[in-house]
Amino acid sequence: MIVVIIGAGLLGASLGLALGERGDEVYLADTSPLSLSLACGLGAGRAVSELDEHTAPDLVIVATPPDVTASVAARQLQRWPEAIVMDVASVKGPIMRTLASNVGACDLTRFVGAHPMAGKEKSGAPNADGELFLGRPFVVVPTESTTKLAIDTVNQLAIDIGAMPVQMDAALHDDAVAAISHLPQLMSSLLASQLLDVPEAALTLAGQGLRDTTRIAASDPLLWAAILSSNAAPLRPHVARIREALTEVLSALDACEDDTYPPAAIAKLARTIEYGAAGVAKIPGKHGGKARTYATIVVYVPDRPGQLARLFVDIGEAGVNIEDVRLEHAAGAKMGLATISVNPNQRDLVVEYLSERNWSVVAS
Amino acid sequence: MIVVIIGAGLLGASLGLALGERGDEVYLADTSPLSLSLACGLGAGRAVSELDEHTAPDLVIVATPPDVTASVAARQLQRWPEAIVMDVASVKGPIMRTLASNVGACDLTRFVGAHPMAGKEKSGAPNADGELFLGRPFVVVPTESTTKLAIDTVNQLAIDIGAMPVQMDAALHDDAVAAISHLPQLMSSLLASQLLDVPEAALTLAGQGLRDTTRIAASDPLLWAAILSSNAAPLRPHVARIREALTEVLSALDACEDDTYPPAAIAKLARTIEYGAAGVAKIPGKHGGKARTYATIVVYVPDRPGQLARLFVDIGEAGVNIEDVRLEHAAGAKMGLATISVNPNQRDLVVEYLSERNWSVVAS
Repeated sequence: MIVVIIGAGLLGASLGLALGERGDEVYLADTSPLSLSLACGLGAGRAVSELDEHTAPDLVIVATPPDVTASVAARQLQRWPEAIVMDVASVKGPIMRTLASNVGACDLTRFVGAHPMAGKEKSGAPNADGELFLGRPFVVVPTESTTKLAIDTVNQLAIDIGAMPVQMDAALHDDAVAAISHLPQLMSSLLASQLLDVPEAALTLAGQGLRDTTRIAASDPLLWAAILSSNAAPLRPHVARIREALTEVLSALDACEDDTYPPAAIAKLARTIEYGAAGVAKIPGKHGGKARTYATIVVYVPDRPGQLARLFVDIGEAGVNIEDVRLEHAAGAKMGLATISVNPNQRDLVVEYLSERNWSVVAS
Repeated sequence: MIVVIIGAGLLGASLGLALGERGDEVYLADTSPLSLSLACGLGAGRAVSELDEHTAPDLVIVATPPDVTASVAARQLQRWPEAIVMDVASVKGPIMRTLASNVGACDLTRFVGAHPMAGKEKSGAPNADGELFLGRPFVVVPTESTTKLAIDTVNQLAIDIGAMPVQMDAALHDDAVAAISHLPQLMSSLLASQLLDVPEAALTLAGQGLRDTTRIAASDPLLWAAILSSNAAPLRPHVARIREALTEVLSALDACEDDTYPPAAIAKLARTIEYGAAGVAKIPGKHGGKARTYATIVVYVPDRPGQLARLFVDIGEAGVNIEDVRLEHAAGAKMGLATISVNPNQRDLVVEYLSERNWSVVAS
């Protein structure tokens, strides 16, 4: 298949590498000649100027920044009247609407929106990797008139690069990412911004809870301004409900300052935590199943090379699969605690195995 | 040392186990005879009724629920006129103030507030563990009149159970936990509560960002209502600032619905993300140093027993210390991605080592 990729950033160059590996002939374009050279130098494809003038691409992938995706896609649909055109922007509705409003000019039977749910905190071709999409959901969003051939082509592409195609319409996709991606980003950023005035002595007490809730706050401001602004409508009701909840929490805190354990305020605070616990229980576990409760085993790990390896070998020798791992280090401590998740019916086996091998099982 | 522990829950019973191991004679009390029996049966100590009537404890630890901590501590100070009395509640100011207002009745030279920064999502004596405190900060909060002997006794206790004593005053402690513990809990709970109305199809797209930001939302509502309400004053300004920021974010989102990329709104959204990135950069890294940038290597791990072990062995054999590990599984995928953090100058070594051993290094 002959593929033209417009935009040689992280996603474009990674797709180039992945499609090159499946045997496609990949051509790249970028407004920055330097980025283009870099991506070509990394093996993501050849410059589109090298495309034979009598040859047309089978597939054009638009991997530009999101603010120009719709106009670039429209132009590519016109330029290549036989090609399937796919974009990879992380908000789908605005792009689909812009193209649909342009329907005289754009042949939407050949257009497929896509959102590979893969990325990194670091952007650009230097971080490109052909295996970026391995195991990740790959959302496929057809227009009302997209042909089965175009949809099948994109589904197959997703499978071939190791991703899992999931078809849904633009509205469901945008609602989904508002709740599971854009709102978490906003809340994490707001939470982390409160640390700016916190004294260093206080931050030395920081534990895993703070680290987990603020990890994604280390993201790119310009990219996220584009994402949040293009998904404003689905995001807004969540933000409004949280602001309303914060208003009630503030009243509850005020009541608690005036009085000890005022009933209405205590009920409000307890309900806030309770609704959160009910919400987090809805997140599915791995392998697409319902959220499962794994047994966790906390093991003390001396901070020396190879200790974690030794721990995993010992667990592996018990024939047990590790479902999740979390490492925790307290500030100032030359040691760590590893929290291992395993199937509950294997917990005792693992604890016994580890104890026999002189591991200090802190909790299980 | 003879120690009486009032309250045989998770913290009380864990302290009983840890102090028993260092050779203390531990006596337990609890308002629930069942909890008391259980804790004694687990080896956390003997029932306080067995304490010889001519013998007085050297140390009394108040490990009750936080709503009764101050009154129990006052009673213990009166009952044992020679003993050092220590509490372990997670908010210190209100307890210190209640005791100080009672100064005629309470001998505060013998009182030390403490907050062992250790716990679990599961409470009660069944989850008790003598190694719960290993490597964790242990905040020591003296009163204005606490003797050096009492402070030294508590510091030594912290060290003996494997924790790291950190002395600070109640106000600094309560401000610190408001920002690094109570606010993250509140934000995580509010975020997770927004998932209640999200359709299942949307939740299958959930990735590590959502999981990390909502993990602590699975917490105990009653305990947290008590914690948030007793730390209302230090928590309030953070909550108010976030509500104010959300008001501005809502205006920005409204502007984005009316117009494409309105400059003031885009600047507001970008600044929100930017302040968060600056805040998260302030969290210290492990070993009490400044936050360090580790090199991360993402490796594809087949979902079979022993694979993670094999990965860690291979890294260990390279003589490299793993600074952090994160496992990610997408819904529906029978595979995982392990993100390994190592010192940047060892990155290439690890990548080479792993590639030679047929690991698929997805990104580095």
